[in-house]
Amino acid sequence: MLRSGLRSASNQDWAKPFRNYRDEIIQNYGKCIGKELDELVTPALILDRAILNRNINKMTTALADSKVVLRPHTKVQKSTDLARIQIEAGAIGVTVSTIWEAAAMFASGVESVLIANLVVGKNKIDSLALIAKYGDLIVSVDNMQNIDDIAYSLKKYGSKVSVLIDLDVGLARCGARSPQEAMKLANQVASHPNMLLKGIQAYEGHCMLEPNPEVRVSLANKAMDYAGSVLEQIAAKYPSAIVLSGGGTGTYNITGKHPSVTELQAGSFVFMDSFHGNLAPIFEISLTVLATVTARHKNRITLDAGRKSIGIDFAPPRIKNSDLVANFCAEEHAIFDIHSEDKIHLGDRLELVSGYAPTTVNLHDVIFVIEDNKVVELWPVFPRGPQDKGFLSSLQNS
Amino acid sequence: MLRSGLRSASNQDWAKPFRNYRDEIIQNYGKCIGKELDELVTPALILDRAILNRNINKMTTALADSKVVLRPHTKVQKSTDLARIQIEAGAIGVTVSTIWEAAAMFASGVESVLIANLVVGKNKIDSLALIAKYGDLIVSVDNMQNIDDIAYSLKKYGSKVSVLIDLDVGLARCGARSPQEAMKLANQVASHPNMLLKGIQAYEGHCMLEPNPEVRVSLANKAMDYAGSVLEQIAAKYPSAIVLSGGGTGTYNITGKHPSVTELQAGSFVFMDSFHGNLAPIFEISLTVLATVTARHKNRITLDAGRKSIGIDFAPPRIKNSDLVANFCAEEHAIFDIHSEDKIHLGDRLELVSGYAPTTVNLHDVIFVIEDNKVVELWPVFPRGPQDKGFLSSLQNS
Repeated sequence: MLRSGLRSASNQDWAKPFRNYRDEIIQNYGKCIGKELDELVTPALILDRAILNRNINKMTTALADSKVVLRPHTKVQKSTDLARIQIEAGAIGVTVSTIWEAAAMFASGVESVLIANLVVGKNKIDSLALIAKYGDLIVSVDNMQNIDDIAYSLKKYGSKVSVLIDLDVGLARCGARSPQEAMKLANQVASHPNMLLKGIQAYEGHCMLEPNPEVRVSLANKAMDYAGSVLEQIAAKYPSAIVLSGGGTGTYNITGKHPSVTELQAGSFVFMDSFHGNLAPIFEISLTVLATVTARHKNRITLDAGRKSIGIDFAPPRIKNSDLVANFCAEEHAIFDIHSEDKIHLGDRLELVSGYAPTTVNLHDVIFVIEDNKVVELWPVFPRGPQDKGFLSSLQNS
Repeated sequence: MLRSGLRSASNQDWAKPFRNYRDEIIQNYGKCIGKELDELVTPALILDRAILNRNINKMTTALADSKVVLRPHTKVQKSTDLARIQIEAGAIGVTVSTIWEAAAMFASGVESVLIANLVVGKNKIDSLALIAKYGDLIVSVDNMQNIDDIAYSLKKYGSKVSVLIDLDVGLARCGARSPQEAMKLANQVASHPNMLLKGIQAYEGHCMLEPNPEVRVSLANKAMDYAGSVLEQIAAKYPSAIVLSGGGTGTYNITGKHPSVTELQAGSFVFMDSFHGNLAPIFEISLTVLATVTARHKNRITLDAGRKSIGIDFAPPRIKNSDLVANFCAEEHAIFDIHSEDKIHLGDRLELVSGYAPTTVNLHDVIFVIEDNKVVELWPVFPRGPQDKGFLSSLQNS
């Protein structure tokens, strides 16, 4: 018996790109199951299953006495396997960034997906209308024409979506810039019979980059106070508008406890990295890049992991359980100056903590899931990077 | 009749990962051939074939009166299709960074491959010895134990490689740190019957980051004077040591004309990017990321290309044929502040010039090759990121 929010993976034709990639991963890396860490080709993306479980449990505990429910962002992991585990642990669905990530989630059997991003362009909007047939799809909007474009495709394909009004709460990226603008968008959504107005999405991304915890609390609360007041105005006119979705790992304990917020989008807490470690130190590093020492000259070592295997956005990689931070990363090299007393030799394998997990995972084919120093599962990273992975064709042909 | 340096793509079992990926690209994106730019899903990696040809011709002209021959680095493009075009245009083979890139090149029919990097670890060294059967393989070394480890695998599999001694000429990354150390390594290579000592690889990477052209000339010449003197000492003892390989796009007109240098590794000149544009302005931008405007609020626009589709190392993305530079990139967003008079609307498609082409290409499945605004070819990006793509198994089973 599957938990509410999950069904079996789709065996329909439109979901073939999802199944094909899983087959490819098994074909290329299936032999790694049961192997010890030392036998893996480096650089390899490895996940400590025990630490992952602890991180998931910590978030569950943190939200236990809050009315906010978790809808984790899965752009971080790009893993439907992990998404299913999170839903088993109580998440009500997932958040994604792209229409292709949404397609992968529905293909895997996840029932409810929020695209916390704008979907623009004919190919993508048609695909949105098509995948809306295969699950509970929620999309964000911040433009009148875009609302009409989506409604047009929904009508063409006979499908429905739920809609959140994207509200700018200080990030100054996407989103309505005023309560009046948000209400105008809400009116437009409500005018389309194939759209259900569900509420507001308000991403306080500007707070994630704020290192001072006190300033972060004040900034995030201010953002959510504002979003809550806008939702109240919209809900007074449209009672279906009940959702306020926002937050990230950096604000899980602020936005996650705000009285107006209903859904938390935090995602990185499952893996963590140097950037998020400073923001939410309660969570532990579960994901690392296993690398090999390819050169040592005096106290300078070179590892075989660089910009093409580890995300260095916002912070350089560091060696796990040490104070060693890379002083430079080339594409296939990370350079460290070690201490004279460090016993590190050519061929040694070291685990690197990434600067930023979301861009790290996106570089890899697969996550090697580790228990007791052995590979126990392969979690395909899908979809990696841009492009539709064949979903555009498979959806049109279905 | 194929040009010297090229044969047909391999139809042997070990080369299956190469063929499988090409099949996958055709299956997923074959329908794009013949389409106009406006019909592509964004973000899409697009290559202007006419500009590419001009860049290739400019490099041929630049080296025409030099005895230095081109062995272009293909870590940039990760495209065997382009590698073959460059060999047709006179390159003597290619340079790569990883053993899996080398495997892809041999699988595609390229005959001569230099791995300008150290190959360390049992899996990789065994794979090196195995692929050495399928082409003219040259590898770099900077460590006595590593030389013996490679020789051991070569003996086990009955294959041979050519070897360049990696010499540090100022980058302080890998490479022998003195002429004495280089000679010691040369002696060790010469002691192994399965290794042919071919010369020196000396990458003056520290010069690429030097923005002042005069300082760059002086730095690069000093580095190559030193490398030339070390090669002379080694060649006096081992006449097979005739190669001095180095250089990049940033030093193509310095290292490419140095009297001691025999092979130039420049690679990025085919595509160019903001970083290399400053170093070698003679070459034009042929590669861009096509993106869609997903939001506009006053003069701030958001595009659907971010850190997961465009390399921002060393420089932020900019909009082609404009002075607009991104002020922030998230994973799936690039933010620009445009001029009030700019006519840019929701849904418009813009071409972005990457900060750094090598990390941009690595994010994409495929390069869409464009002529007269239409897709004329699909060039698979292979291998993308780390991991062996199945070559480890296919080589062991062959």
